[in-house]
Amino acid sequence: MQSMSVEVIEVGPRDGLQNERAIVPTAAKVAYVEALVAAGLRRVEAVSFVHPGRVPQMADAEEVMARVPRVPGVRYAGLVLNGRGLDRALTAGVDEVNAVVVATETFSRRNQGMSVDDAVRGFGVIAERARGAGLTVTLTVAASFGCPFEGEVDPARVADLVRRCPGAQEVALADTIGVGVPAGVRRLAEAVGEATAAPLRFHFHNTRNTGYANAVAALEAGAAALDASAGGIGGCPFAPAATGNIATEDLLYLLHRSGVRTGADLPGVLAAAALIEKELDGRLPAQLGRAGIWPPPAH
Amino acid sequence: MQSMSVEVIEVGPRDGLQNERAIVPTAAKVAYVEALVAAGLRRVEAVSFVHPGRVPQMADAEEVMARVPRVPGVRYAGLVLNGRGLDRALTAGVDEVNAVVVATETFSRRNQGMSVDDAVRGFGVIAERARGAGLTVTLTVAASFGCPFEGEVDPARVADLVRRCPGAQEVALADTIGVGVPAGVRRLAEAVGEATAAPLRFHFHNTRNTGYANAVAALEAGAAALDASAGGIGGCPFAPAATGNIATEDLLYLLHRSGVRTGADLPGVLAAAALIEKELDGRLPAQLGRAGIWPPPAH
Repeated sequence: MQSMSVEVIEVGPRDGLQNERAIVPTAAKVAYVEALVAAGLRRVEAVSFVHPGRVPQMADAEEVMARVPRVPGVRYAGLVLNGRGLDRALTAGVDEVNAVVVATETFSRRNQGMSVDDAVRGFGVIAERARGAGLTVTLTVAASFGCPFEGEVDPARVADLVRRCPGAQEVALADTIGVGVPAGVRRLAEAVGEATAAPLRFHFHNTRNTGYANAVAALEAGAAALDASAGGIGGCPFAPAATGNIATEDLLYLLHRSGVRTGADLPGVLAAAALIEKELDGRLPAQLGRAGIWPPPAH
Repeated sequence: MQSMSVEVIEVGPRDGLQNERAIVPTAAKVAYVEALVAAGLRRVEAVSFVHPGRVPQMADAEEVMARVPRVPGVRYAGLVLNGRGLDRALTAGVDEVNAVVVATETFSRRNQGMSVDDAVRGFGVIAERARGAGLTVTLTVAASFGCPFEGEVDPARVADLVRRCPGAQEVALADTIGVGVPAGVRRLAEAVGEATAAPLRFHFHNTRNTGYANAVAALEAGAAALDASAGGIGGCPFAPAATGNIATEDLLYLLHRSGVRTGADLPGVLAAAALIEKELDGRLPAQLGRAGIWPPPAH
């Protein structure tokens, strides 16, 4: 692989828990984050500042942020969709803002309630205000690989959108519905790499079992960061289409055994996953907890 | 990817069913194979000629072989471990013999009941007899990526074993316990590629969620064939460590969308997986049947 180290960004507390049926108590969320930080993860997307009526799983975002350990070197991100979300994020004291723009018009209107043009303008305002407040700004392009309403998404369209959203210190390409394949990852990385000088981050779901292969392809294409959720949470095992993020522990297993450093500690991540498993229905999509680290740690 | 086409070898009827708790009736096995052949799969590892006391799931191997459709261009393989198994395979009329040698001494003695030296000699006899009878011979090296008793397996050790087993028309490298990662696949393909001129085939289990990334790495390293099982069967969903093969449908999804041709038909494979799911406990490890083909087929 091209990169011999990569940043793994833990998104279980946000994207994972946001998509679980269960509403996890604040204390359990905080314990999950504590375990993740103890495992050496240095960037944690901890919360989402969206309307609690729409996403009740994230209604306690401020309380979570007030209670997570503020360790030197650990940065917490909050997802925001609009100015109101940014106000909350600033008050709550996140280190990073992850602002989302959707690649397609239909998905943008249905999911964010605004046109892509309005989202682009909104991003500009969010980015300027957030950077003015000293926060790091990530631009996430949702549905970068495919849209449930418009089908295939042309990498050129994503690249064009990225060009229209300057001001991000990082560009995250999200396979929101889990349809990407490695060849598509390479095409998208190339197109977006020409549109921005910002480091690229990829966000994969393992919906069709391509998530880990996509992660490898992203790394080989020069990705600086990969999202993952401890336990692979976010896809309810009893839902018809499980759509969990790729699991942090399974990703670390693959990376570490391939000689790619992450700074994170695999047994520590397994402990975090075991903590959150108790709060959720059904078994985790992650496999490593069941199969075991290999070779087995020496006694 | 280097190869723009690859042979996908269906091993669900053999490796899949052999590792399921349920004993599937012969008629259901035959229906599964019929569906796989109808889906365009041209090589099917249909049975295993091992002692029925040890593997009761395969006790009806002769009856299965007597009833599967003999379509021009479709080749059936049977797995054999010794001369007695080869006798049965020849009588049953398989087209190919898959003969197994284990990469490590301890696993060989425990699983096959013989030393590696004896297995190498046995392979020579099997290969000569099978080729004399006009059959294609595959050498499978089990535990090529790791051994439950001896830990990591050096690619040089696998390559040495392959050199000691001439007479195979194909060399299959099996990640029997599902511990491989892409970097290891590349190392092994390189080492074994120098040891034999025979085409390389890879056999992955998705035990730790690395199976599909490994398949991509194998293709990029020049693999001619990949094993997969429709439904991803072989890993009981209720067992502590699910160890199913990579799923044929999920692999085809990844390959076809990456521009790699296989000759197989995805909806047909989904139909085969749905057939076998009814015979087994719990849900299939394959994801595509739940998530759906994407983009959705036109109406």
